[in-house]
Amino acid sequence: MTTTSAENAAAPDDDVVEAEVPTSTATIALIAAEAGVSIPTVSKVLNGRTDVAAVTRARVEEVIDRHQYRRRRGRSQTGPGLLDLVFHELDAGWAVQIIKGVESVAGPERLGVVLSELGGAHRPRQEWLDDVLARRPRGVILVLSDLDPAQRRQLETRSIPFVVVDTAGEQPAGVPTVGSANWAGGLAATRHLLGLGHRKVAVISGPVDVLCSRARIDGYRTALDEAGVAVDPGLVRYGDFFVGGGYTHGMDLLDRPDRPTAIFAGSDFQALGVLRAARELGLRVPQDLSVVGYDDLPVTEWIGPPLTTIHQPLYEMAATATRMVLATARGEAPANPRIELGTELVIRESTAPPPTVV
Amino acid sequence: MTTTSAENAAAPDDDVVEAEVPTSTATIALIAAEAGVSIPTVSKVLNGRTDVAAVTRARVEEVIDRHQYRRRRGRSQTGPGLLDLVFHELDAGWAVQIIKGVESVAGPERLGVVLSELGGAHRPRQEWLDDVLARRPRGVILVLSDLDPAQRRQLETRSIPFVVVDTAGEQPAGVPTVGSANWAGGLAATRHLLGLGHRKVAVISGPVDVLCSRARIDGYRTALDEAGVAVDPGLVRYGDFFVGGGYTHGMDLLDRPDRPTAIFAGSDFQALGVLRAARELGLRVPQDLSVVGYDDLPVTEWIGPPLTTIHQPLYEMAATATRMVLATARGEAPANPRIELGTELVIRESTAPPPTVV
Repeated sequence: MTTTSAENAAAPDDDVVEAEVPTSTATIALIAAEAGVSIPTVSKVLNGRTDVAAVTRARVEEVIDRHQYRRRRGRSQTGPGLLDLVFHELDAGWAVQIIKGVESVAGPERLGVVLSELGGAHRPRQEWLDDVLARRPRGVILVLSDLDPAQRRQLETRSIPFVVVDTAGEQPAGVPTVGSANWAGGLAATRHLLGLGHRKVAVISGPVDVLCSRARIDGYRTALDEAGVAVDPGLVRYGDFFVGGGYTHGMDLLDRPDRPTAIFAGSDFQALGVLRAARELGLRVPQDLSVVGYDDLPVTEWIGPPLTTIHQPLYEMAATATRMVLATARGEAPANPRIELGTELVIRESTAPPPTVV
Repeated sequence: MTTTSAENAAAPDDDVVEAEVPTSTATIALIAAEAGVSIPTVSKVLNGRTDVAAVTRARVEEVIDRHQYRRRRGRSQTGPGLLDLVFHELDAGWAVQIIKGVESVAGPERLGVVLSELGGAHRPRQEWLDDVLARRPRGVILVLSDLDPAQRRQLETRSIPFVVVDTAGEQPAGVPTVGSANWAGGLAATRHLLGLGHRKVAVISGPVDVLCSRARIDGYRTALDEAGVAVDPGLVRYGDFFVGGGYTHGMDLLDRPDRPTAIFAGSDFQALGVLRAARELGLRVPQDLSVVGYDDLPVTEWIGPPLTTIHQPLYEMAATATRMVLATARGEAPANPRIELGTELVIRESTAPPPTVV
């Protein structure tokens, strides 16, 4: 009976049923015995409580892991509850699209969305995870912020499912992800420019070690290859996804006589940087230079000129990830734990035939 | 003892102390007797549970209110906990600034920030409030989404403090708010344009029934008055804060021979609409037309031309509101429950002397 009380004291309301499951309690007793600690101590570790010595916690986690213990979820999977949404950082411009997508599914299910930003360094990663274990959300949605294997196991042993909204194109093994078609996006953007008659097409993508950058550039290469245009390595750039990266590469690419007539940027923010470089060099867009962005942020419709871009379905990616994590929480194994949603070319006013063709 | 168990079953961990407070328990018994319901029913109403008939809930709320009952807060005010952040809607462009401001304070205090969007219509207002009562956050931060008096009382009786991040300039009586200096912002923007030599200065503000719109326009009037320039009623417009509002009024103001040489917009988004109208009419900014925005969203630094605007300290407003609500939760009465942070003119490239002066 000590076990039951200890579990109840630490667990939120909807999980009281757990104490009624003898196998689970027995397992906790076994783990406690094997780790040489009390049952309440195992309970504390399971609930992310920090009032347990680090060395003890590590020992308990190790035993939990060895026994492949999985905490049972409470029966109650409706009514008020929480869902954790974690960003690496919120500055990418598209955070609100993701938040709205999660809300569109979480709201009607009456789940409170707990938002965290890990890159802001306000909250160390392990401390954040302890807090997640303590508040026991229905699930966790990670945006560009994957956990290390030990941290993933901690969620798994507590039966807290998680899904990665994969804007980077990385797919760590065994992790459910919702991504988008980066390669196809690169292909569509470049085909559009080639179709307008451009032959000197530059690409500025994200960091070389982020897979989506590679995928988009491979799409770009294939489009050039289809059109029988050789790839000029000097026109292929890796940078960061922010305005500064677009501006720096844009200046470098455009400030010379044999400049490209079109630039495909890795993000709408990068495209803003390219547009600024063009303005400073006195180049008119689209008359002297065509620019294609990536993401389709709401603001790109309104800037001057309105930006031709690749629509990345961030809202739908987030909504899909939320549905997936909630299905897993209900015990339904997702039919397909790796989903890639389509990207789409949106033609506005920043692209036109190159000056020599006009 | 029934009372104690009922309270414990429904209440989260850190509030167990409440059951040890006899006066509180006695009051709950009294409320139950007077409302003619059981003690667990009172407990359910206090915790926002929906498994109580509406008419019973209303009766219990009425008795709670009449007795000016205030639930005591648990002693534990450190460690994992929640903070509710509520937006009317997330599309205003500045939501991320607010979120980051709240996170900057909540993160180090290890509070999970629960984000809700009420305007999205995914979540009826009362249902949202029930969920807040059930999860019992440390406090609630409202952004442009004030509650009606009955809802405020519900939070008060549960001792859940709340603060309004007041971007609208409204200050409902008795509600702590953190706002910014809207009148001074209007004054600074208009003085800047007058100082450049403009005399035909138009203003497009937000809706006429939102106080901040009036305050900014009053600042505009005072600046004109200082400079001895008569207000032309045809140059004073109320609209909405979105791009469309700026575009429509911009077209109307600019598509005539006696057009203004400068426009002060009520938001950066409105300014984007004005810039588009100017582009479509073949007017160069700032040579033919000066434009001042409002808010200082990060993107305004990068558009063409970079926008002169009024910095609204959204991040600091949100951080201040968070500190205020947490202080109240700790039992510290805020020294000043009405705070207005300063606004500031940021001069970039969208403003210049008018064409006739050049």
